[in-house]
Amino acid sequence: MASPTAILLMSCPDQGGIVAAISGFIHENAGNIVHLEQHVDPEANAFFMRVEWEIDGFRIERNAIAEAFGPLAGKFGMTWSLAFSDVRPRVALFITKENHCLYDLLSRHESGELAMDVPLIVSNRTDLQGVAERFGIPFHHFPINKENKQEQEAAEIALLREHRVNAIVLARYMQILSQQMVDAFPNRIINIHHSFLPAFPGARPYHSAHQRGVKVIGATSHYVTEDLDEGPIIAQDVTRVSHRDSVHDFVRKGKDLETIVLARAVWLHVNRRILPYENRTIVFG
Amino acid sequence: MASPTAILLMSCPDQGGIVAAISGFIHENAGNIVHLEQHVDPEANAFFMRVEWEIDGFRIERNAIAEAFGPLAGKFGMTWSLAFSDVRPRVALFITKENHCLYDLLSRHESGELAMDVPLIVSNRTDLQGVAERFGIPFHHFPINKENKQEQEAAEIALLREHRVNAIVLARYMQILSQQMVDAFPNRIINIHHSFLPAFPGARPYHSAHQRGVKVIGATSHYVTEDLDEGPIIAQDVTRVSHRDSVHDFVRKGKDLETIVLARAVWLHVNRRILPYENRTIVFG
Amino acid sequence: MASPTAILLMSCPDQGGIVAAISGFIHENAGNIVHLEQHVDPEANAFFMRVEWEIDGFRIERNAIAEAFGPLAGKFGMTWSLAFSDVRPRVALFITKENHCLYDLLSRHESGELAMDVPLIVSNRTDLQGVAERFGIPFHHFPINKENKQEQEAAEIALLREHRVNAIVLARYMQILSQQMVDAFPNRIINIHHSFLPAFPGARPYHSAHQRGVKVIGATSHYVTEDLDEGPIIAQDVTRVSHRDSVHDFVRKGKDLETIVLARAVWLHVNRRILPYENRTIVFG
Amino acid sequence: MASPTAILLMSCPDQGGIVAAISGFIHENAGNIVHLEQHVDPEANAFFMRVEWEIDGFRIERNAIAEAFGPLAGKFGMTWSLAFSDVRPRVALFITKENHCLYDLLSRHESGELAMDVPLIVSNRTDLQGVAERFGIPFHHFPINKENKQEQEAAEIALLREHRVNAIVLARYMQILSQQMVDAFPNRIINIHHSFLPAFPGARPYHSAHQRGVKVIGATSHYVTEDLDEGPIIAQDVTRVSHRDSVHDFVRKGKDLETIVLARAVWLHVNRRILPYENRTIVFG
Repeated sequence: MASPTAILLMSCPDQGGIVAAISGFIHENAGNIVHLEQHVDPEANAFFMRVEWEIDGFRIERNAIAEAFGPLAGKFGMTWSLAFSDVRPRVALFITKENHCLYDLLSRHESGELAMDVPLIVSNRTDLQGVAERFGIPFHHFPINKENKQEQEAAEIALLREHRVNAIVLARYMQILSQQMVDAFPNRIINIHHSFLPAFPGARPYHSAHQRGVKVIGATSHYVTEDLDEGPIIAQDVTRVSHRDSVHDFVRKGKDLETIVLARAVWLHVNRRILPYENRTIVFG
Repeated sequence: MASPTAILLMSCPDQGGIVAAISGFIHENAGNIVHLEQHVDPEANAFFMRVEWEIDGFRIERNAIAEAFGPLAGKFGMTWSLAFSDVRPRVALFITKENHCLYDLLSRHESGELAMDVPLIVSNRTDLQGVAERFGIPFHHFPINKENKQEQEAAEIALLREHRVNAIVLARYMQILSQQMVDAFPNRIINIHHSFLPAFPGARPYHSAHQRGVKVIGATSHYVTEDLDEGPIIAQDVTRVSHRDSVHDFVRKGKDLETIVLARAVWLHVNRRILPYENRTIVFG
Repeated sequence: MASPTAILLMSCPDQGGIVAAISGFIHENAGNIVHLEQHVDPEANAFFMRVEWEIDGFRIERNAIAEAFGPLAGKFGMTWSLAFSDVRPRVALFITKENHCLYDLLSRHESGELAMDVPLIVSNRTDLQGVAERFGIPFHHFPINKENKQEQEAAEIALLREHRVNAIVLARYMQILSQQMVDAFPNRIINIHHSFLPAFPGARPYHSAHQRGVKVIGATSHYVTEDLDEGPIIAQDVTRVSHRDSVHDFVRKGKDLETIVLARAVWLHVNRRILPYENRTIVFG
Repeated sequence: MASPTAILLMSCPDQGGIVAAISGFIHENAGNIVHLEQHVDPEANAFFMRVEWEIDGFRIERNAIAEAFGPLAGKFGMTWSLAFSDVRPRVALFITKENHCLYDLLSRHESGELAMDVPLIVSNRTDLQGVAERFGIPFHHFPINKENKQEQEAAEIALLREHRVNAIVLARYMQILSQQMVDAFPNRIINIHHSFLPAFPGARPYHSAHQRGVKVIGATSHYVTEDLDEGPIIAQDVTRVSHRDSVHDFVRKGKDLETIVLARAVWLHVNRRILPYENRTIVFG
């Protein structure tokens, strides 16, 4: 019904005329902008923009847009990417044994809320194989230990490439990724950490939070970088707790946070609304 | 330190080339955009934008901008307004007897958070005269009853005009404004209602909420229109309550909501971030 | 590992000595209280309490507790119920075509978070039959129209009784229940309404909320009574929206609310933490 | 109108019969319980309770209650304290130069929401002397540097004792207290820290939070102990931020959090609802 759109995410040094130039480029070629949001970081002297326009009726063929846009991008020194709303990202889910994020993502996928393809599910255990099968998604088991980690990850990367996967969602995947995996999908691996980062990084954050006597617990979704729990934050949320809540209650309440926060991050990623920038993210509304 | 800015708020029928035209106009005259946010309402086929640019170095004198912009506005059929960041709105506070919103707004005004002038405070009672005096702001007492309402409001309007007031904040003012006052300040009177509208309009909303057994209470800030509690909503927030909370507790917790929500609405108004549109508002981030 | 517990929910006219009498009864019989929470409503002159104690080592057999407690209950004029933590409620899920609450509840059930049995799923359509089957839960289709409503509901009630169901969860069930069904399960049917009641009762609340231009949307879980959307509220939650959110976005964001709020209500019910009282609920922490 | 109440806060090793014994003691002496809340920490094998009963009609004189309760307390090994609702805590406010928490607390004090006396305000600067004077509260200036800190604090302690102060609220007081001050008011000094502890302890938390790119900021109120920012947490709250928020916006939004969270903690303290326990707090609803 609605026309598919082209989505441009870009950043460059802040300077006059960027909006005029890009909106002029789109208008001159008969494009209709449906969303444009810019952001200026005065401290970093940096400019960021997401612009989305209908490609039905656009005078440049979709395959030729990048080339046509090149000179403008060069003039302003842009870093940029171009995507199309009707090209669905191919996302692999990595899981271990907790089912809440997995069910939630598959349910949203099935209902059409998450416009992505899920060609495969990867796990270091077999606990959730049945869930994958219920949804008819191929399940791949890669048991991992210290000795075989490099080798197994290399096999995973090969498999992901074979399936033309362009993003990974760690849906409570309880294995630390090695550098090769992070390098293979830079700013394309989304993790959910079960605390309000930077509070309580590492293992057993609910136990630490309970021990500290906090009155609010949180969850954080972020892109995975080489430093564990230090990557660019995409989304965070919190919920109240009290002295009446045991660690077990923290875990139970936290699961809802993890589920919601991870789903929000995946939705933003799939809709090309995230622009990672140094160790932060610009999240376009 | 930072340059003052010009702030354009506009709406028009959605059509191609609006962003290109406006950003082109600014760029051609050497203006540097510091904020631009647009919004398209596809159902209403309407386009909205807020754009803010530095006027130091802008080639058009500030007094001549409106005239220079006129042809462009006409071409696209725009409804628009232009303001300058260094021209502070002149805001009158209307109060009755509750002090929380008053103290809060005066405290924010004093600390510089609210970039507005407060030339006078108006009240239908004298309970809070001392607070006005502590802050050195002229206090005007207009006792109002059924018989004198029209006359007293007419006197208030005259006084407000004399002080070149361009907005009114009803900081828990417990009198319904008549049509003449609403007409004198269209979309320029901000009210705080102590419920999550449209739930519990009218008087004693906390009592009604308690009676209904809700688990969350709210507050709503809105522009005043002829229909009580029906004007465009600017900001809303909520807080949890439980069976342990009496009506008295609802009132106590609600005061914090009222304070925060009203302050947020005033801040948005003072910073020209609100575009009322039919019975809703576009609130630019 | 932990001992099973007896759970007493009671209310009576407020008077001296209730806590002393009940805690004395438990202590004299060697019971160890693990949770006790009371509430006094001074306006209604009413007293409410939930008390939970370990039954391992309790001197009265579990089947004899009710009888032994009878005289005390009589003395204070109590309305009361007794349950045991190791007797799982038998809950039927009623659904129509939206899958988010269903997946969520089944996932929580499967992971053990919801300590209930789900002997059957009832639907007026067949859209979600596959989901029920994936989880191995018998699915019963009762197509309902004006003509057959009474008859079909009577058949449902018979089926529910046959399965010894003691509570019903309407997990986005899009049919209004008739009086016979409500009477068959008083304060035992939990519904999720997709608005912040009492705002936007009835059909299409997200559309109404969008039209009104609210800045926050909500969801409400409540027991079903004869008056639609008027039953005792169990849980409510909200999330922010803005002018950028279309009705479609309201629906998408609202689904998360519905899921969380319904799951919370079911958890509270299953754990015997809700005491309905007139048209409100006491929810014990 | 309502009777004044006695408020007992107690903890002891968990064991059978505590509730029965205490509620029996009150009932036998004709006391009417208006609030009773208990909490069991199974890991620590500890029992906690707050119980509040009317003293009009209680058979033991208020001055004799402690002695009469002594044997019971001894039997169960209780740590306990007794207070009366009509004996207002005497609270000193410590401030530096930011006015938001000060105005807020004085406004709540003036309106009667905070049932405490404020005999004096202490500051290491004179910026806010005028605010104290507006409210008619004696202002004491104690300039502090490395050399005179011990001496000045000793003078402060003497002054506080002279005014029979029993609690201190650090309303954005920008000086670290030395051990002698902490020791003089154990679990009676309430601080507001402008972050979601344990994230971002120390100075300039908003800058650190902005640098890290968080999507939520918080504030934490806690009792002051010898370890800075490590004391028992009383209350926490958070608000959303985005890439559009500068450090300046973090500070602005954070002020609202600080104000609300500190006021909540003071209210809880004044109403004897906090039971510090190791490095945590039990906060009775």
